[in-house]
Amino acid sequence: MHTVGFIGLGAMGAPMAENVNGAGYPLIVYNRTRSRTEPFAERGERVADSPCEVAQASDVVIVMVTDDEALEAVLEGEEGILAGLTDGTIVLQMSTVTPAGTEAAAEAVRDVGGRYVDAPVSGTVGPAEEGTLTVLAAGPDDLLGEVEGILAAIGEPIVDCGAVGDGARMKLFVNLLLGDMMGAFAEALAFGTAQGLDYEGMLTVVEAGAVDSPLFSIKGENIAADDFEPRFPVDLQFKDLRYAVEEANDEGVPLPQTAAARETFSAARGMGHGGEDMAAVVKFFEQVAGLSVGDSSES
Amino acid sequence: MHTVGFIGLGAMGAPMAENVNGAGYPLIVYNRTRSRTEPFAERGERVADSPCEVAQASDVVIVMVTDDEALEAVLEGEEGILAGLTDGTIVLQMSTVTPAGTEAAAEAVRDVGGRYVDAPVSGTVGPAEEGTLTVLAAGPDDLLGEVEGILAAIGEPIVDCGAVGDGARMKLFVNLLLGDMMGAFAEALAFGTAQGLDYEGMLTVVEAGAVDSPLFSIKGENIAADDFEPRFPVDLQFKDLRYAVEEANDEGVPLPQTAAARETFSAARGMGHGGEDMAAVVKFFEQVAGLSVGDSSES
Amino acid sequence: MHTVGFIGLGAMGAPMAENVNGAGYPLIVYNRTRSRTEPFAERGERVADSPCEVAQASDVVIVMVTDDEALEAVLEGEEGILAGLTDGTIVLQMSTVTPAGTEAAAEAVRDVGGRYVDAPVSGTVGPAEEGTLTVLAAGPDDLLGEVEGILAAIGEPIVDCGAVGDGARMKLFVNLLLGDMMGAFAEALAFGTAQGLDYEGMLTVVEAGAVDSPLFSIKGENIAADDFEPRFPVDLQFKDLRYAVEEANDEGVPLPQTAAARETFSAARGMGHGGEDMAAVVKFFEQVAGLSVGDSSES
Amino acid sequence: MHTVGFIGLGAMGAPMAENVNGAGYPLIVYNRTRSRTEPFAERGERVADSPCEVAQASDVVIVMVTDDEALEAVLEGEEGILAGLTDGTIVLQMSTVTPAGTEAAAEAVRDVGGRYVDAPVSGTVGPAEEGTLTVLAAGPDDLLGEVEGILAAIGEPIVDCGAVGDGARMKLFVNLLLGDMMGAFAEALAFGTAQGLDYEGMLTVVEAGAVDSPLFSIKGENIAADDFEPRFPVDLQFKDLRYAVEEANDEGVPLPQTAAARETFSAARGMGHGGEDMAAVVKFFEQVAGLSVGDSSES
Repeated sequence: MHTVGFIGLGAMGAPMAENVNGAGYPLIVYNRTRSRTEPFAERGERVADSPCEVAQASDVVIVMVTDDEALEAVLEGEEGILAGLTDGTIVLQMSTVTPAGTEAAAEAVRDVGGRYVDAPVSGTVGPAEEGTLTVLAAGPDDLLGEVEGILAAIGEPIVDCGAVGDGARMKLFVNLLLGDMMGAFAEALAFGTAQGLDYEGMLTVVEAGAVDSPLFSIKGENIAADDFEPRFPVDLQFKDLRYAVEEANDEGVPLPQTAAARETFSAARGMGHGGEDMAAVVKFFEQVAGLSVGDSSES
Repeated sequence: MHTVGFIGLGAMGAPMAENVNGAGYPLIVYNRTRSRTEPFAERGERVADSPCEVAQASDVVIVMVTDDEALEAVLEGEEGILAGLTDGTIVLQMSTVTPAGTEAAAEAVRDVGGRYVDAPVSGTVGPAEEGTLTVLAAGPDDLLGEVEGILAAIGEPIVDCGAVGDGARMKLFVNLLLGDMMGAFAEALAFGTAQGLDYEGMLTVVEAGAVDSPLFSIKGENIAADDFEPRFPVDLQFKDLRYAVEEANDEGVPLPQTAAARETFSAARGMGHGGEDMAAVVKFFEQVAGLSVGDSSES
Repeated sequence: MHTVGFIGLGAMGAPMAENVNGAGYPLIVYNRTRSRTEPFAERGERVADSPCEVAQASDVVIVMVTDDEALEAVLEGEEGILAGLTDGTIVLQMSTVTPAGTEAAAEAVRDVGGRYVDAPVSGTVGPAEEGTLTVLAAGPDDLLGEVEGILAAIGEPIVDCGAVGDGARMKLFVNLLLGDMMGAFAEALAFGTAQGLDYEGMLTVVEAGAVDSPLFSIKGENIAADDFEPRFPVDLQFKDLRYAVEEANDEGVPLPQTAAARETFSAARGMGHGGEDMAAVVKFFEQVAGLSVGDSSES
Repeated sequence: MHTVGFIGLGAMGAPMAENVNGAGYPLIVYNRTRSRTEPFAERGERVADSPCEVAQASDVVIVMVTDDEALEAVLEGEEGILAGLTDGTIVLQMSTVTPAGTEAAAEAVRDVGGRYVDAPVSGTVGPAEEGTLTVLAAGPDDLLGEVEGILAAIGEPIVDCGAVGDGARMKLFVNLLLGDMMGAFAEALAFGTAQGLDYEGMLTVVEAGAVDSPLFSIKGENIAADDFEPRFPVDLQFKDLRYAVEEANDEGVPLPQTAAARETFSAARGMGHGGEDMAAVVKFFEQVAGLSVGDSSES
């Protein structure tokens, strides 16, 4: 069985690594903040001092870091992956990065004889723990076949998105829709609240109709509970909307609703809610219109 | 068992009336175009020559017509419901009308000694046939209790929305969200298509994630099949977005995404797609950006 | 010389009436709040007790009231203009009303044998006092010729807009542009302020370029002076944007920027600035982004 | 009198260089496409083979190139300005570049002992020929004083915008407003045309009111003449709107109208009008709504 290196044991990475390990793969892990490796050490898994060391000891190196810059750093930094990569080793890139970022990483990996899979995931901490993330896999078919067992430990379904870069593009596609839906839901709730509708009644009607969506059920409850702990913060959702509009602009595709959503998320950030969960975009409407959304007792 | 009058045997009304009849209620039906009453005559149900005649013979009169004007006509016209209403008869208004329209109708009904329930439905022809429409019931509790059996024959759940007028408001709330979601889905699909993503792959990713929704599954398939037969046409969805923004403006609630969606639907109408299904809003993006959304063979 | 009746001596109407009088026309005036007629009584002009009395005594009756409802009231109310109109008397309608409102008024006037000119004005109190309002004249050429001297006393240029109704449409056209420009100016100033640019420097650059406009010079100074006394309040500008989008929707013309401006003005109203001058739309941006626009000492 | 180097003899640069020369300054010019230097050679001015040669022979080096990349190339390329810069020589940067681009250039110039002025211009070819560009000057006061005579030959007014970088920021501020106004004008004209208003009448009303602006007079005539020769093309205006929204997003300032304008310009590009003058944004509305804007004969 392949030895799997895992770099990046954050809120998402740690449970993903656990699931890979739970499926029987021996691990060698690395994290910048070393304390996050302790649970793995306690289970008897190996802890490395650098991405380079991980690369030297692995058949497949999973990277799960925050953004393009972090990916470049763990790859190309001193003591980086590239410095330790053995011929034929697979870098399985699962972070949310830009198409350009993942394409550049793929080229760098191939230049030193490695192989590369672009496979970001869609989902939050819950699905990461349950092993039910959507895996947006992109790369040559034989390579996808080779890492299939590992991916299956992390999520389901595994969607074949095409060539390297298309995983990142698919992630942007779904997050564009996610941001637009969150913004639209906030508008609808503000509208209904202003009209005096009962909050629980609104959620019931949404769940009973064609517009029903897990997103609305989860965020609807969070708003009612005044719980804005950041599962996916306004700042990150905003970044994705921003990036999606940029890419669309390059393609000559107008996105008027997405552009409007982006400005609403921007306003929510301007009002100080950037670090809260994306559902906090509703606070923009509450503050502008003097509403208390989610407060059933009030209506 | 109550005798139920049913006025308005259109695409929605006819299956609703059948379900009421199927639950054991004897019917007396009326439709402006008389041919639509034939299936009911064949089943042995009574056919009336006017709304007035329906009102005279019924304990509960269901009205399922197209808009405020039609509602006013069947109520207040010569040979209208009001002319035949017996003391205590219930008018069960289920059409999609404005809050002001249903409130005015309620007042007119009460003025002649009738009772009034505001209960529009959310859903399309499929759920109407299956008896699974969402019923947005509003009115006094005892009245809702009295018509419960009839409503249960038509749909599930029956959501208690509050006082007369709130059923219409709830309908507007959910249709605002519906329009925003359809517009957002069209933008996302145009974006993904322009990026070269596979259409089936996009649908799979949507269905696997928090953004999953019956709307996206249905409209996603329709677009792929180039099927824009109007289940709910662009013109009607546009009308609801327009009306929602108007109402929100009266309440001081800004709706930037909804306003953008409204203009996109307006553009789709300007381009000649008003009579097609709401999913045809995607054609705006196709025509502007020279894309063919839903054509998997092309990507 | 024609005797001119003048109904509506508000902030705009009073100086307009004075200019008509100053050009040599004898007046008979009416105002709901009678105290506003006193300056005219003191000059020896006749004061009427009702619109009807004005109509009986005039060759031309100018109406300058607030909206469609007020126009309908002075025309069709008991003691209204129609009750006193002599055959061939001209009603010169100069209020800002809807196309439908002015068309209905024209029909009512013609039904009793009167003649009708649709001639709203563009401009604020300053131009009203100076007799430099833009007159948006619409109606048959011979009628426009007959009232030319009166219109010339009120403003310049007198633009021939076409048939009755087109004056109102032209007013909406120019106020749509006005609202969009005010909103765009507020965005630009918020942008520049956030970037640390000097406020006076921004105004200088605007005045030196192709974007120069009297609007920006006036509102730029008002914002610097924190002067939001309502020359044209947010509420009225909002109403015009709202109405313009409605009309455009009827014509199948999308107006995405205007729709966005409308929502920004809506937000400014939601935040409590509806009664302030339209320049107060800048406060929306100040409050969202924590800026102080117009404060040169700060930058 | 200072010897002035001039790098970049494009449509804007050539007349600017002529005006500097006309004010008495001896020139040494460089252009990538050498043919553009011929008129200067014919007048007896010196032509250099490289930016380096220009720098060696000048007291002040004006750079007027297309974008950040071109600026970096003429500065830091082999045979670039930095390679020939003498201690104390002034680089007078007048291209439209980003704040970050001009700040990086300033640092590079200072690193080799040079001095740096950030002075982009606002205006098109006409004002460039007439020496009436608005100069957005930024840098230390003593330096601005030293180049005052040169700047005065190029334009008027010379607005002191602050520190290096603020010239670029001011340019973005005014171009944001320019794009929003052009988009708003297109919407207003489409609206009026759809309502049947006479095109010349609309222009007259605009010119008579608070919304009057040189931009509207020029573009109004261009549209009537069906003249979309690119003075400032859709592509460049779009780029500025795009960049402005990006910068505003970094500052937490929402720009809903500008974002909507950006998508309209994006749509105009998608429809193939990117290379035409910015006024061609009106074609988006014409194509969507089936209108012919500017065609007075039609109305």
